[in-house]
Amino acid sequence: MESDEQAIRELHLTWIDAVNSGDLAGLLRSMADDVMFLGPGETPSGRDAFSPRFSAAHQQSRITCSSELQDVVVVGDVAYTLSRDKLSVTPRAGGEEMRFAGYRSTVYRKQPDGRWLLARDTHTLSTIAGGAGDFNP
Amino acid sequence: MESDEQAIRELHLTWIDAVNSGDLAGLLRSMADDVMFLGPGETPSGRDAFSPRFSAAHQQSRITCSSELQDVVVVGDVAYTLSRDKLSVTPRAGGEEMRFAGYRSTVYRKQPDGRWLLARDTHTLSTIAGGAGDFNP
Repeated sequence: MESDEQAIRELHLTWIDAVNSGDLAGLLRSMADDVMFLGPGETPSGRDAFSPRFSAAHQQSRITCSSELQDVVVVGDVAYTLSRDKLSVTPRAGGEEMRFAGYRSTVYRKQPDGRWLLARDTHTLSTIAGGAGDFNP
Repeated sequence: MESDEQAIRELHLTWIDAVNSGDLAGLLRSMADDVMFLGPGETPSGRDAFSPRFSAAHQQSRITCSSELQDVVVVGDVAYTLSRDKLSVTPRAGGEEMRFAGYRSTVYRKQPDGRWLLARDTHTLSTIAGGAGDFNP
């Protein structure tokens, strides 16, 4: 029997894999109906805004995200995590790779059927210089 | 008997009042031992780092924060909120006021004695231009 913490760790991996492979359906399956995404300079957005934004990003760029889980706390039917994330965005039409680094604070909710889904996802990623050591520590 | 949601709403107000009045002791009383603070360009920091940073900020500047609670979700002994925040920082030694705007995603934990404490606080505040309409909508 898988523990809740294991389930969260697997969902975290699954999420990043789906981001990198452009698996929009997989991401939508992993988020709650009332999910909210939040980042610097952004207005909070939900499930409906996610799909066109994610599809456009993958059409325009090759996206490579890595995420190192630093903390997992499970309390009943809620879990919250902290991860250190790096993101590389390379325009398919050519042009310079953009690199971002920061952290991500995520809240998960356990569903009545036992599955865990993303409920809140707040990142603090910001641009880093091309060769910044922070991206490849 | 106060509801958990009411308790969270009051703690949110108390927190902002304490930020604005420089009430470090009040803030420390309102945060869990394992609290983590997170913002753009910042390494996650805890309770120990909070005190000197907060004291230095208040010594150097007049700080005025406002926060509009947009969402409160309570699930058992965990609550999570989303707020829209504005921050004004005016150097006491003179110099131009700096304004920041963004959002804040907060996780609270209910303690065995029934009190709620901040456990995770992630903001996305970024600088805005002096007269930006976003600061005074």
